[in-house]
Amino acid sequence: MEIFFATGNKHKFAEAKAVLSDVELKQHQFRHNEIRSDSLEEIARDAAEKAYRQCKAPVFVEDSGLFIPALNGFPGTYSSWVLEKIGLDGILRLMQGAENREARFEACIAYKEAYDVWVLHGSCHGSLTEEERGEGGFGYDPIFVPEGHEQTFAENITLKNKLSHRYKTLLEFSRFLRTR
Amino acid sequence: MEIFFATGNKHKFAEAKAVLSDVELKQHQFRHNEIRSDSLEEIARDAAEKAYRQCKAPVFVEDSGLFIPALNGFPGTYSSWVLEKIGLDGILRLMQGAENREARFEACIAYKEAYDVWVLHGSCHGSLTEEERGEGGFGYDPIFVPEGHEQTFAENITLKNKLSHRYKTLLEFSRFLRTR
Repeated sequence: MEIFFATGNKHKFAEAKAVLSDVELKQHQFRHNEIRSDSLEEIARDAAEKAYRQCKAPVFVEDSGLFIPALNGFPGTYSSWVLEKIGLDGILRLMQGAENREARFEACIAYKEAYDVWVLHGSCHGSLTEEERGEGGFGYDPIFVPEGHEQTFAENITLKNKLSHRYKTLLEFSRFLRTR
Repeated sequence: MEIFFATGNKHKFAEAKAVLSDVELKQHQFRHNEIRSDSLEEIARDAAEKAYRQCKAPVFVEDSGLFIPALNGFPGTYSSWVLEKIGLDGILRLMQGAENREARFEACIAYKEAYDVWVLHGSCHGSLTEEERGEGGFGYDPIFVPEGHEQTFAENITLKNKLSHRYKTLLEFSRFLRTR
């Protein structure tokens, strides 16, 4: 079975290819006007519809973000943009003195095939450090410690590969594709 | 001449009605999926096209934001959303110790009539205070002091009404409508 992953990000594509080993995965270089929404699912559904119109073949999109309850869910669906603007230092400043340092990564896959769209979710709960730690990973990895652990994702990339929201969602998607 | 202002915000509508006194202004209750972009113009152009498809009559949209150079243009086109999430307190924290406290409000109007779209811009330069001041206005007004003045927009609403990015852009638009 051949399906497309609509993404401009080659790292995301490589990660998906490793998990979805049962299908023939192809990359669709996806450019579109992403909508504004606080819901990953709404963004992913909309993007999957647009990607399907371009590919005219089974295709999925993935969207993810870091949600911080003490900041009302900021940076959420705008995580990449916020990081680009204010950096990890900005997030740590906003969290200075916050009692609740909880955070969660969330990912959402929307898969479109003919007339139907399926949506899968995955998340990773944890907390934010008070300073950046570690050199691995990317994005918010240096300030995120998954629940039940001591190291950040950037300090322990093996941990990240097993626990990450994206990995969990891809695994769900892989199961979904096998069992239907 | 009858034109529509596509907005869900009654305060914006009232402000526009006061400035655009030469035309018969009607409000179009506008709901749409706004695109994500760092450019007010790109967002406004897209929204004007969508509004025109709904109204099928001459229609304009207005978009605005606060751009802070020390924060790489943050919160920019996402100003309302950022304010909702991290508040003025969040912006002041991000600006703690910043040497360059410069900021500018920008507004953009996109007007669509049959096959053409016209775009008008207005801005207001100023700087950010170190604490909130004043009870008037809304949004970022309590931390913004326009260039050449000492009071924030929230402390002096008359000042705001004369200098604001939105007022300037509406004035430009009014001139445009009169002279073509």
